[in-house]
Amino acid sequence: MERQLAPEWETSTWLNTPSSLALEELRGRVILLHAFQMLCPGCVSRAIPQAQRAVELFENEPLTVVGLHTVFEHHEAMQELSLRAFLHEYRVRYPVGIDKPGQHGEPIPRTMHAYGMRGTPTTILIDSQGYIRQSVFGAYDDLRLGADIGALLAEVRGTGVRNEGPDDSTRGTERVAGQCSVS
Amino acid sequence: MERQLAPEWETSTWLNTPSSLALEELRGRVILLHAFQMLCPGCVSRAIPQAQRAVELFENEPLTVVGLHTVFEHHEAMQELSLRAFLHEYRVRYPVGIDKPGQHGEPIPRTMHAYGMRGTPTTILIDSQGYIRQSVFGAYDDLRLGADIGALLAEVRGTGVRNEGPDDSTRGTERVAGQCSVS
Amino acid sequence: MERQLAPEWETSTWLNTPSSLALEELRGRVILLHAFQMLCPGCVSRAIPQAQRAVELFENEPLTVVGLHTVFEHHEAMQELSLRAFLHEYRVRYPVGIDKPGQHGEPIPRTMHAYGMRGTPTTILIDSQGYIRQSVFGAYDDLRLGADIGALLAEVRGTGVRNEGPDDSTRGTERVAGQCSVS
Amino acid sequence: MERQLAPEWETSTWLNTPSSLALEELRGRVILLHAFQMLCPGCVSRAIPQAQRAVELFENEPLTVVGLHTVFEHHEAMQELSLRAFLHEYRVRYPVGIDKPGQHGEPIPRTMHAYGMRGTPTTILIDSQGYIRQSVFGAYDDLRLGADIGALLAEVRGTGVRNEGPDDSTRGTERVAGQCSVS
Repeated sequence: MERQLAPEWETSTWLNTPSSLALEELRGRVILLHAFQMLCPGCVSRAIPQAQRAVELFENEPLTVVGLHTVFEHHEAMQELSLRAFLHEYRVRYPVGIDKPGQHGEPIPRTMHAYGMRGTPTTILIDSQGYIRQSVFGAYDDLRLGADIGALLAEVRGTGVRNEGPDDSTRGTERVAGQCSVS
Repeated sequence: MERQLAPEWETSTWLNTPSSLALEELRGRVILLHAFQMLCPGCVSRAIPQAQRAVELFENEPLTVVGLHTVFEHHEAMQELSLRAFLHEYRVRYPVGIDKPGQHGEPIPRTMHAYGMRGTPTTILIDSQGYIRQSVFGAYDDLRLGADIGALLAEVRGTGVRNEGPDDSTRGTERVAGQCSVS
Repeated sequence: MERQLAPEWETSTWLNTPSSLALEELRGRVILLHAFQMLCPGCVSRAIPQAQRAVELFENEPLTVVGLHTVFEHHEAMQELSLRAFLHEYRVRYPVGIDKPGQHGEPIPRTMHAYGMRGTPTTILIDSQGYIRQSVFGAYDDLRLGADIGALLAEVRGTGVRNEGPDDSTRGTERVAGQCSVS
Repeated sequence: MERQLAPEWETSTWLNTPSSLALEELRGRVILLHAFQMLCPGCVSRAIPQAQRAVELFENEPLTVVGLHTVFEHHEAMQELSLRAFLHEYRVRYPVGIDKPGQHGEPIPRTMHAYGMRGTPTTILIDSQGYIRQSVFGAYDDLRLGADIGALLAEVRGTGVRNEGPDDSTRGTERVAGQCSVS
């Protein structure tokens, strides 16, 4: 199958970042591009919290999480001013671009259209060379998303073989309720 | 850091498999070894469901999920007969080995001791060459576990570069509640 | 302790109802008044779904669920037009009144102030005679809320003694995952 | 509909209580009788945690929570010794009676049979006069269970009218994630 180069995104404004983000500048990093609408229940309950955890979990790895506000319905209800309050209240700290409105009355905004997205939430993985490697509309299981990210990060590392040994100290810090310890 | 070769496991019985599993026979595959006790609440609520999802999600990839019943307390309450009923009721279908009791009255069973586990649940990732790459006691975040599995699977594939394009058809089949579709 | 008569609410608009709701007209019914803001995460994840389940569960009993949009921050971001889209997307069907803005630049709206609410979500139970019987800011455990509703509904029934026998047919229709049936 | 007097339970042993519990001794109190099997997944994930919360929430009210271990399958796997370890690990502190085995090889134990239960979990509400008022096999929604308990507790209080005013201090102690406070 042909690999598809990710189209440059077309945005009107960027939030949570001092300057706008261009796809090209992120070459060399894996990109988790997550398209959402602030009034889309599935985005709020699932996709945004998932993106937030990805930011935390991979903060020391070459992964960049980018939000894209792709409003294709209720346009008047999801203006920039409302989006700013939303991001503040939901503690979303990663960069979010606002997709440029469609031309000639087209309700679907431009980047959303260029990527052929079918709705929100949509999660797209772009590899370090700028190719689209995954595009998932709806639920993206955490284990599956993790594995897809892990594979792309391995490519960045080149030979892919990390030499670390067992890394209990940095992993099992969170306790699972009801775990049983050897006394 | 030195990498540690995974010690061979010492088991008395295997369930859910026609013959016992030896570590050596799995060379070339990534192993998700998950140690549990049937009466450990954190194993039941979290680690076992996580292992079951890993079986489903990676069924077409070189990953083998292995359960290890490492009883270090309430030994009389968790005999093989009870374990069999437990596995049946919880629909656990992957192979489960019963760790051999410790010698000389040692409450900790042998494989658990050899791996230096501190309790249950413990999740261990063994790479395709037999080395321990991760060992986590307690909660292992799905995204993080997925990424660690993804990295090890990438090693198995060698160059690590999969050529697939966006794979929407096989991923986004599950719907997320409240997703919004372009009409 | 003195019982407090619920103050009449002061609203500018009503949604999801052909005409505005007055407290007095609901005399004889128990009222679950739930104050929220559309961009308050705890309202969206917890209080609104709880109110929706209350509507379904008590549809044949003298309980009325009323939403109150009490905007005390980000006023510009939560105007009526945005609220309408929000209620549509989240499938909120019960009546929602928009609390009247505070006077003289007071950020807290009028009904919110009259009830002494400390934030959102706030859940208030008003009995059939118009008295405030519970007022909870934050989490209101389902079991506890249920019990408080059940007690107030018992008052409406007068002697309080329902004569029904075991009512398996109408209750246990939902299956719990992993239940075990006698074959 | 005829109301049915709850049959006396027939048990072989009681755990978590110094002496056995008789139905008659609990006259004047509402009883939440919850039948379970220690290897029934739906009991472990849902019914037992629900019963535990009921104990905590209603500790100052005339409600008694009673567990009943009604083994009707895998009898050898769920003996008293295993049940004791289970109750210890899951921190179950309320009294649990072990239902007496059926006679003449009948797999269903005696109390389970007398109450006509169809499986586990089954939750039964007995009023202060000893009548069965609810019997639910499977999921018992928290709000619904709360309302049914609240109605029965109101009967115990007689006139049913509590005079308390708004009781914010004792209710909203738990915080809901993402609640918004007036500054």
